[in-house]
Amino acid sequence: MQKITIYDTTLRDGAQAEELNLTTQDKIRIAQKLDDLGIHYIEGGWPGSNPTDRRFFDEIKSCTFKNAKLAAFGSTHMAKFTPEKDPNLTGLLEAETPVVTIFGKTWDIHATVALGVPLERNLELIANSVAYLKARVDEVIFDAEHFFDGFKNNPEYAIQALTAALEAGADRLVLCDTNGGSLTHEIGHAVAEVRKRLPEASLGIHAHNDSELAVANSLEAVRLGAVQVQGTVNGYGERCGNANLCSVIPNLELKMGYEVIGQENLARLQPISNFISEIANLRPFMRQPFVGMSAFAHKGGIHVSAILKDARTYEHIPPETVGNERRVLLSDQSGKSNILFKAHELGYELAKDDPTVDRLLKELKLKESMGYEYSVADASFELMLRQALGKPLDYFHFRHFFVVDAKREEDPEPMSEATVIVDVKGQQEHTAATGMGPVNALDRALRKGLERFYPRLGEIRLLDFKVRVLSGAVRDTGGTASFVRVLVESGDGTDRWTTMGVSHNIIEASWQAVVDGINYKLFKDEMTEA
Amino acid sequence: MQKITIYDTTLRDGAQAEELNLTTQDKIRIAQKLDDLGIHYIEGGWPGSNPTDRRFFDEIKSCTFKNAKLAAFGSTHMAKFTPEKDPNLTGLLEAETPVVTIFGKTWDIHATVALGVPLERNLELIANSVAYLKARVDEVIFDAEHFFDGFKNNPEYAIQALTAALEAGADRLVLCDTNGGSLTHEIGHAVAEVRKRLPEASLGIHAHNDSELAVANSLEAVRLGAVQVQGTVNGYGERCGNANLCSVIPNLELKMGYEVIGQENLARLQPISNFISEIANLRPFMRQPFVGMSAFAHKGGIHVSAILKDARTYEHIPPETVGNERRVLLSDQSGKSNILFKAHELGYELAKDDPTVDRLLKELKLKESMGYEYSVADASFELMLRQALGKPLDYFHFRHFFVVDAKREEDPEPMSEATVIVDVKGQQEHTAATGMGPVNALDRALRKGLERFYPRLGEIRLLDFKVRVLSGAVRDTGGTASFVRVLVESGDGTDRWTTMGVSHNIIEASWQAVVDGINYKLFKDEMTEA
Repeated sequence: MQKITIYDTTLRDGAQAEELNLTTQDKIRIAQKLDDLGIHYIEGGWPGSNPTDRRFFDEIKSCTFKNAKLAAFGSTHMAKFTPEKDPNLTGLLEAETPVVTIFGKTWDIHATVALGVPLERNLELIANSVAYLKARVDEVIFDAEHFFDGFKNNPEYAIQALTAALEAGADRLVLCDTNGGSLTHEIGHAVAEVRKRLPEASLGIHAHNDSELAVANSLEAVRLGAVQVQGTVNGYGERCGNANLCSVIPNLELKMGYEVIGQENLARLQPISNFISEIANLRPFMRQPFVGMSAFAHKGGIHVSAILKDARTYEHIPPETVGNERRVLLSDQSGKSNILFKAHELGYELAKDDPTVDRLLKELKLKESMGYEYSVADASFELMLRQALGKPLDYFHFRHFFVVDAKREEDPEPMSEATVIVDVKGQQEHTAATGMGPVNALDRALRKGLERFYPRLGEIRLLDFKVRVLSGAVRDTGGTASFVRVLVESGDGTDRWTTMGVSHNIIEASWQAVVDGINYKLFKDEMTEA
Repeated sequence: MQKITIYDTTLRDGAQAEELNLTTQDKIRIAQKLDDLGIHYIEGGWPGSNPTDRRFFDEIKSCTFKNAKLAAFGSTHMAKFTPEKDPNLTGLLEAETPVVTIFGKTWDIHATVALGVPLERNLELIANSVAYLKARVDEVIFDAEHFFDGFKNNPEYAIQALTAALEAGADRLVLCDTNGGSLTHEIGHAVAEVRKRLPEASLGIHAHNDSELAVANSLEAVRLGAVQVQGTVNGYGERCGNANLCSVIPNLELKMGYEVIGQENLARLQPISNFISEIANLRPFMRQPFVGMSAFAHKGGIHVSAILKDARTYEHIPPETVGNERRVLLSDQSGKSNILFKAHELGYELAKDDPTVDRLLKELKLKESMGYEYSVADASFELMLRQALGKPLDYFHFRHFFVVDAKREEDPEPMSEATVIVDVKGQQEHTAATGMGPVNALDRALRKGLERFYPRLGEIRLLDFKVRVLSGAVRDTGGTASFVRVLVESGDGTDRWTTMGVSHNIIEASWQAVVDGINYKLFKDEMTEA
């Protein structure tokens, strides 16, 4: 089985993404996760470009990696300096990594226009830089910038640039589709040509997704002889991103028969993809292939009944191989099968002809048309199910709330204060609390009233709070009176659950979600203590 | 120039996406937009599957399309019925569309296991259904479900199924990669085989994105002889979505030399993509190729200075060809070039060594580290720029606000009421207003105070209101005290502008964004009246 190595540039190229802002600590945590995943090369950054990247290379020196080799990235030396005096190359060596990757121009106009050097001089810059580094580090990788555009416009020059790097000692020549504009068959053709002209070279591919072809281009390059793929986790990167390693790796390993990170590591792909998006503070893309929340989610009634018979009918790979799982969705396209499956999943066995199922389906479709989306709020669905089964929860009864935010010009932030009145076990509790905002104040006031009776409520932590404005209403009312959906994810150290509220009023929507979240905890505790 | 037709299934396959919920009115609006774009076929839905789809076909009868042919979608007739008695086929004909598309099983296990019919009988179902429909409608398209998996496992049977449809009169055979698991070279190989075996057939491709190869697979199929591509706008669809037409079309037209929708229509791609995501109430994907907000956004200092010399260096196509535009981003990776470019864009000419630029860069990086993201709130950036230039706005001065939300158990929603005190042109205004939520109440109270002095404020409409919880803070405080960023998009019929606020307190964050939005309008009006 041929081995393909994976070179991750999430911390360097990925970090150029518009919405990405990583601290040094974030980068170290991501690097450790990548190593856990079995990634072979981790490009840590560009030490010559900014202090954050330099700091990363200093701090990472105290970490040891099980699988990965750390790489520092930079450019060929500047035309006005010798390699020894070039601050860029000096910065690269100071990073003290086992691998150094430098990029050089291989498209003639880039050398002459963007860099402003004659073509021959550019070849010298490449050769000098590679030779200088190779004498001082274990492994030197040459990133042939804009290679495919260069090869299209002036193939001879592009090959000369590669040759210069190869003869100076580069261990790998990585062909970059820097603008992301190349088509898949063009990539294949160019890679095959390079293999013919430089058969002794070890090749890599570095694709960008501007044409939505980065993954396909990476696979095609491997098929035609490349042995390394450069990309990022979740396809992060400038503009449309880099080749998404979370798609490249399973395709190579599960469908093309290559040895990449191994089955055991592959089964950790989804949790690691999620973990990294959390560190990056980026919402995961639900429809992301292999690891996305929707990747194995079935909505249409026909699909659901088919996969329950034979999973191959609608799943191209078993979800567990990449650490994902199958999901059956509830929606207005739900049939009874979806409700029964969901109820069964939650531990309720319903008969197909049970009138509850019809009632539930009706209520579900009604609420979904108002903006509720039970497919993302399992706990709220379960509470609705119990209500429909005639088993509503009865831990407390709401009477009244009142919340105030007041700000004077000298206050940096408003003061928020709430009072809540609830009946609990026959007694009325009237509590007050301040908070960092109105919802926080209400949440604290409510819990104050309940914790005396239900001490375990102290275990709840709010893990995530999402607000979404349903744009239909924005158009209708044309103002800050939009219909709002709030999702609250709560946890208690053992479980995590998501609850939901929908209203024109953001306080009301948040209140519903918070109340459902508390009710669900109380219910869960009662079940486990029973 | 060879012509390739585009068949859009956003309203049918796209609507199976987890996060998509379209009303009949939504579907009609989308269909009209697709027609504007020059799409050749619009699949309106599955009349046999649910009442919403049936209603669509009724209501769409009163619309005329300039470019598109409407198609109704359904399955081959059920084994237990004859075509005449089959409710599915009957429903299809009742839709009275010029085109009918039916899907049939071409993978042997699907016929025997999922459908439960013998292989021969399945071929009959296909032939009977196609023949029955062809005698009654202009154009019949056969979707060969799971074709590529079927061709891999039992190629002879897959070809027989296609042949049955072709001989019964199908105008087009669309090869579907229903599970989305096929690799690009496998698609090419299969399409080439089908062309060899059935040279007289007109072929289409219907790819899914489960391996992140749907666009590549569609292009490869066309390269090997398919003349129609089925997909959805923005790649919507179940699981990982369908082939993204917003990437397929520009690739075919701009890079592969096919005639698809024409240059004039192509230049409307981005606004139409955006419009449709708005109707669908889905957040546009920033990194989406061609049409995404980040697709031509440059962050790294080196990229910015290079593209200002020659756009080809970092752009694979001119952004205007697809209705998009180049953006230069501000961030902590900003250099002075970014600030100067942005200021220039807004009409302020700054010298590179102006100390204001340094001051601005420092403040930008400081605020970005707190959670502000100026790359998405141009108006707030401009207000900050003016402040730095010593030209702050002075339309009103904030003194105090007070907002209350109160709910009793019998109220369906809380009552929200706000009071605001501001100084305007030397006078103190103290106003009160109710609202559908606390932010709406504050906004209305504030405008009440200002409209007497600035009547044109009545022109402002709130177009979008986005709340994002910055998850760093969620981890720190573990509660509803998260750091919140609010983006407000305002419009007045002529312009649209986005402003931002960041705080622990959602009321404060919203207030900042609303105040900036109002200030920007007043500033804009003053500039245009000057």
